[in-house]
Amino acid sequence: MNQDYIVPNNWSIIEEGFEADRLKSSESIFSIGNGAMGQRANFEEHYSGKTFQGSYVAGVYYPDKTRVGWWKNGYPEYFAKVLNAPNWIGINVTINGEALDLAACKEVRKFRRELNMKEGWLSRSFEVTLQNSIDLKVETKRFLSLDMDEVGVIQYNITPLNNDAQIVFEPYLDAGITNEDSNWDDKFWNILSVDSEGDQAYIVSHTMITNFHVCTAMQTQLSLNGKVVNANKSINKTDKTIAFEYSSQVKKDDTLTLTKFGGYTVDRYHDKNDLIPVAKKTLSKASKLGFDQMLEDQKAAWAKIWKMSDITIEGDVRAQQGIRFNIMQLNHTYIGKDARLNIGPKGFTGEKYGGSTYWDTEAYCIPFYMATKDQEVARNLLTYRYNHLEKAIENAEKLGFKDGAALYPMVTMNGEECHNEWEITFQEIHRNGAIAFAIFNFHRYTGDFSYIPEKGLEVLIAIARFWKQRATFSTYRNKYVILGVTGPNEYENNINNNFHTNYTAQWCLNYTLEIIEKMKDDYASDLKRVVDKTKLLDSELSDWKEIASNIYFPYSEEHQVYLQQDGFLDKELITVKDLPRSERPINQTWSWDRILRSPYIKQADTLQGFYFFEDQFTMEELERHFDFYEPFTVHESSLSPCVHSIQAAKLGRMEQAYQFYVRTARLDLDDYNHEVEEGLHITSMAGTWMSIVEGFGGMRVIDDKLSFKPQIPEQWDSYSFKINFRNQILKINVGKTETKLELEGDKAMDILVNGKVVTIKPNDMVTV
Amino acid sequence: MNQDYIVPNNWSIIEEGFEADRLKSSESIFSIGNGAMGQRANFEEHYSGKTFQGSYVAGVYYPDKTRVGWWKNGYPEYFAKVLNAPNWIGINVTINGEALDLAACKEVRKFRRELNMKEGWLSRSFEVTLQNSIDLKVETKRFLSLDMDEVGVIQYNITPLNNDAQIVFEPYLDAGITNEDSNWDDKFWNILSVDSEGDQAYIVSHTMITNFHVCTAMQTQLSLNGKVVNANKSINKTDKTIAFEYSSQVKKDDTLTLTKFGGYTVDRYHDKNDLIPVAKKTLSKASKLGFDQMLEDQKAAWAKIWKMSDITIEGDVRAQQGIRFNIMQLNHTYIGKDARLNIGPKGFTGEKYGGSTYWDTEAYCIPFYMATKDQEVARNLLTYRYNHLEKAIENAEKLGFKDGAALYPMVTMNGEECHNEWEITFQEIHRNGAIAFAIFNFHRYTGDFSYIPEKGLEVLIAIARFWKQRATFSTYRNKYVILGVTGPNEYENNINNNFHTNYTAQWCLNYTLEIIEKMKDDYASDLKRVVDKTKLLDSELSDWKEIASNIYFPYSEEHQVYLQQDGFLDKELITVKDLPRSERPINQTWSWDRILRSPYIKQADTLQGFYFFEDQFTMEELERHFDFYEPFTVHESSLSPCVHSIQAAKLGRMEQAYQFYVRTARLDLDDYNHEVEEGLHITSMAGTWMSIVEGFGGMRVIDDKLSFKPQIPEQWDSYSFKINFRNQILKINVGKTETKLELEGDKAMDILVNGKVVTIKPNDMVTV
Repeated sequence: MNQDYIVPNNWSIIEEGFEADRLKSSESIFSIGNGAMGQRANFEEHYSGKTFQGSYVAGVYYPDKTRVGWWKNGYPEYFAKVLNAPNWIGINVTINGEALDLAACKEVRKFRRELNMKEGWLSRSFEVTLQNSIDLKVETKRFLSLDMDEVGVIQYNITPLNNDAQIVFEPYLDAGITNEDSNWDDKFWNILSVDSEGDQAYIVSHTMITNFHVCTAMQTQLSLNGKVVNANKSINKTDKTIAFEYSSQVKKDDTLTLTKFGGYTVDRYHDKNDLIPVAKKTLSKASKLGFDQMLEDQKAAWAKIWKMSDITIEGDVRAQQGIRFNIMQLNHTYIGKDARLNIGPKGFTGEKYGGSTYWDTEAYCIPFYMATKDQEVARNLLTYRYNHLEKAIENAEKLGFKDGAALYPMVTMNGEECHNEWEITFQEIHRNGAIAFAIFNFHRYTGDFSYIPEKGLEVLIAIARFWKQRATFSTYRNKYVILGVTGPNEYENNINNNFHTNYTAQWCLNYTLEIIEKMKDDYASDLKRVVDKTKLLDSELSDWKEIASNIYFPYSEEHQVYLQQDGFLDKELITVKDLPRSERPINQTWSWDRILRSPYIKQADTLQGFYFFEDQFTMEELERHFDFYEPFTVHESSLSPCVHSIQAAKLGRMEQAYQFYVRTARLDLDDYNHEVEEGLHITSMAGTWMSIVEGFGGMRVIDDKLSFKPQIPEQWDSYSFKINFRNQILKINVGKTETKLELEGDKAMDILVNGKVVTIKPNDMVTV
Repeated sequence: MNQDYIVPNNWSIIEEGFEADRLKSSESIFSIGNGAMGQRANFEEHYSGKTFQGSYVAGVYYPDKTRVGWWKNGYPEYFAKVLNAPNWIGINVTINGEALDLAACKEVRKFRRELNMKEGWLSRSFEVTLQNSIDLKVETKRFLSLDMDEVGVIQYNITPLNNDAQIVFEPYLDAGITNEDSNWDDKFWNILSVDSEGDQAYIVSHTMITNFHVCTAMQTQLSLNGKVVNANKSINKTDKTIAFEYSSQVKKDDTLTLTKFGGYTVDRYHDKNDLIPVAKKTLSKASKLGFDQMLEDQKAAWAKIWKMSDITIEGDVRAQQGIRFNIMQLNHTYIGKDARLNIGPKGFTGEKYGGSTYWDTEAYCIPFYMATKDQEVARNLLTYRYNHLEKAIENAEKLGFKDGAALYPMVTMNGEECHNEWEITFQEIHRNGAIAFAIFNFHRYTGDFSYIPEKGLEVLIAIARFWKQRATFSTYRNKYVILGVTGPNEYENNINNNFHTNYTAQWCLNYTLEIIEKMKDDYASDLKRVVDKTKLLDSELSDWKEIASNIYFPYSEEHQVYLQQDGFLDKELITVKDLPRSERPINQTWSWDRILRSPYIKQADTLQGFYFFEDQFTMEELERHFDFYEPFTVHESSLSPCVHSIQAAKLGRMEQAYQFYVRTARLDLDDYNHEVEEGLHITSMAGTWMSIVEGFGGMRVIDDKLSFKPQIPEQWDSYSFKINFRNQILKINVGKTETKLELEGDKAMDILVNGKVVTIKPNDMVTV
């Protein structure tokens, strides 16, 4: 645990003091991104200690050849992964011939890092005594521009403190990079050209196999005490790198500054022959604007983000810091401009999980993006899956399904399945349900039905076809069963009749039938088009109805709960509180078979179903199931505590809800699971947001109306959040005794607060 | 399928004609071995086509680092595998400057291979026209000596047919070999010295990590028309190889012969500093005996093996050839001299499965070795597990068991677990039962109880402790359940209450209690010693009794059968005959999840329990279970058909029994599963033997008496087999109408034939 390492602050993530052992963790936590690229908080100057270098370009991936011990039919041959991209941030620094290297100097003092969340930049400052006894002060600041998303900027200041010094700056580009996470040590990049022109340099390279062309570029500028210096430089070139070398004699207390503009142009957006010309133009524009103006623009762009998505918490600075960190990192990862992109579980902060798309997007992220961005953004996330429909059908075919049934991949970059554990890849099929649910959820929240006739129905039909073929009629039970699945709780594999999966399957079938029924009246020609395209038969509809009406759910009369799966009650039902603390997390101390035999639940499973489909269960049912399953839940998935937090809040158990909230909000800042060095848990950050908005705030959409049941944790004085609901912005401020609702918009809005209708006029505030 | 490729012959395996596409398959089928070493049927001379080189030394292995996609706690770090050992058979041949290479010559004629099973040798002959138009006749013969098990001998004859020719023989040793099956391309061997002295050469090398020292050695001799030639040779040495070069001008129709004695001395049997001296002495002795005498000795040694273990079949040459091939290959693999060795599933014929020990030994091989060798051999196989007991306890500890519970590894070389699929390694725990069963079986067959007080009881206690901890009390069922297992049928993973596993567990607990009870009276001091050593508590005995008495078995009232596992009836019960032929074997055409959901059974599972414990079930029960499960059994394990064959015979369904027999007997000769090139299915060959002896012959041991219920397949005129029963040899000859029993021994023997006692006097024959 990292607890108390990060300095509590409402608007900044701050690290004070240099600890080499925490370096890789801090490199994750202080990561920055702008949706188009991302950068771990690696030092610009050379560092000879342990570091995990990571620069990432959205959508540029490599299909790494699958590595398994024992091959199973149906495994994909490749695992697409986001690639570590050529390094554009590097600036080697030499002082009187000695390299500046925090792992090799005499002493580091006053080391401080700040990730300013309000304004969107990362700074670092320290004083250092080199082996040659020169004392220096170093101050750097960098950001990835939101406005010009192909550009990042670094300002690197050095001040000699005890002597004049010969300072050499060597800003460079390096395309000779490798991936931490590589199965076979393949070569991922092929370098095409290394060039420079004036103050700019360019390396064009392409990924092997996928053949993405990327130009990595930089433009540099030297200043002394704030004034641009027309410096001579030499150029050092290899077949993989290019560096400019500026050598200056600097007086004690003078400050030498290198400003570096850099980044990537990619053939996903430009013709591959234009990559250098575009890079040239973009860097020229950036350098003309200059560091200061670009920083102002960055602040303005972040102000716009916060205006729509900020959550404030009074009286609990750690909680405040946590939620803003989550919101910021989500925005680093995905902004919603490009429907071909999605939200990798680690965003641009690490390589684990390959940067690919999981069901996390539909189950956790879409609510956040629906409420904090324009509707178009969530629609783009739906369109992403629509665009992958054909591949999802192919994926199902590989597993023996037919006639247009689709199984969306567990993990994907381009629509093809990338994962290779049979118990997950082939069996964790509830993901298909989450993709259908997101369509429903988008319509429920935005009121925009148009996506469904346009694209969604095709997806729903293909998913319904999958469930039809995946269900088995058990003559023994005279019911349809679903055998051999892994539910959201991955601590059970190859189980039968997982409640969550069966319920989701039933819901998908019913929802698709309902949509078709609705479209018969209102969207007849769209329906006809889709029916023709998908060759949908009437007999399929009756099959779906038959299955949905006769699906089996394991149920315990004794406990009056749905069982997570067949046979759950055969387990030794010892609760988590009776598990020795030393044995947790069990995924680090127990063998896999022991985990599987145990009743322990990695993440909300039955309760995840109660979360998705809560209006279909009574409060008493929720309470019974929560009381039955919570005691067995170890929350060893980052996606678990938020669901339990929301449900605890719904049940009025605010202290428990708050504990779950803190666990999810500061998961990475406090490094709960000793793994933050691998990267941040981006997708679960959207769950944190849900914990406040849907949990404490009790936000729901009921019959086209927003509804709230505000509660507040004892530890807080007040909190507020904003919601973009159907193009009007509602701000909710919840205090100890009252809730204030403010509307920015142009139409009056009827809102349910604790079940009572409250009407708010545009640009007015109501206190309840 | 290879059917009709191997020429039918009662005593030989014969291949006629050269087919490069079948080369790797034939290299497996024509493999030879002598229990101490083995050799695939690779050509002596260079072959530039596709080949799978394999020379193996018993017990010399390497711990290859585990390769998995997703690590699970509890996985072993290494997979010990038998190593491809330095090549001692190689003889390069050059004719007028052109290398003899069957892949590169003009024409190959009259290619013929014969594996003479009666006499224990492999020959090869062919005529060839080289690119340089020289016609040659080549005849080779080789064998691995049974009497001197560190030595193999090759005689290589060349006769120029159309011209005089300059023939260069270059016999060599090559330690620069690799493994086909290697996870990380590690280097397995380190070479210490390459030397020669006179006509002998030696390479000493050791395996990395395990540090086995091996001297690979050869001695060579040149003859012309059968007369030894005192030839000059040159010596070609590299850091990995050594070769002698003999160059001779040979007249048309003269025959030049190279005789090569070679093999290995290993520090498992000699001091590592003595390896060269021992090799020197051994080769000198062999060459003094000479090829012809050694061949005579080999014939005699094989005659001895056949005397005890031959099975004759009249009227069905393919069946006859099949069973002798099986018996021969079992003897190639394991002879029983060394209790540290065991029977790898592929013997010395390939690298798959690492040459390690599986439960195959206890479940399939021990009956063969008990009946065809001295009792000591089977006892050695039991001792092997006794010697691994400590490691089995450690293995269980790694998975969270304690207090002396043992889980024997799924796959092992030195007692440590080597396998790395959680569903197998952690869950296929019935193997523990097979190890206990073998102890019972040995006592039942041999009447020798002494192994149990001496060693067996410790093993039984450790296994009983495992079952005690592995069972879970289900308050719901008020019974003990066993959750999360894989039964013998590996087409089901992580299932609950597998009948076979639960029954085996119950049996182990009861048997251990029974043994302890028996020893209280007759072996009190041994019992005390073991109780003290294992710290066995009385409370453990009552726990075992409690569990054994209350273990749960899934049962179908409707079908009146035990269910293979919980939920089996939920499956779509379509029988194998309704499976399109094109989809079989399903393990090559279906995705893994589909296999798991299906009712298809890879190998006898419930029926394996009925096989082990048949005296605990009625004939009606067997029939019901056979009729229920056989239709779902795809027999995609080589270990399956033999069990079904035995049970079909027991049920009097001789045609079905015969079909299963043929499938198991000629599995490799006919290459049923398109995989014989990887090596032979050695352990299932013991199942073939059981099909005849226990199936058709109906042999059982009942109350210390041999019992037979002889039947004969319609296709056969008669068959016979021999049984070493308690140091007397009984020969049973079964004809269409009568059965003859002959006894070689010194005491009269009471035998049950079809339930009636028949007394046979020593060296007498009885006809029934």
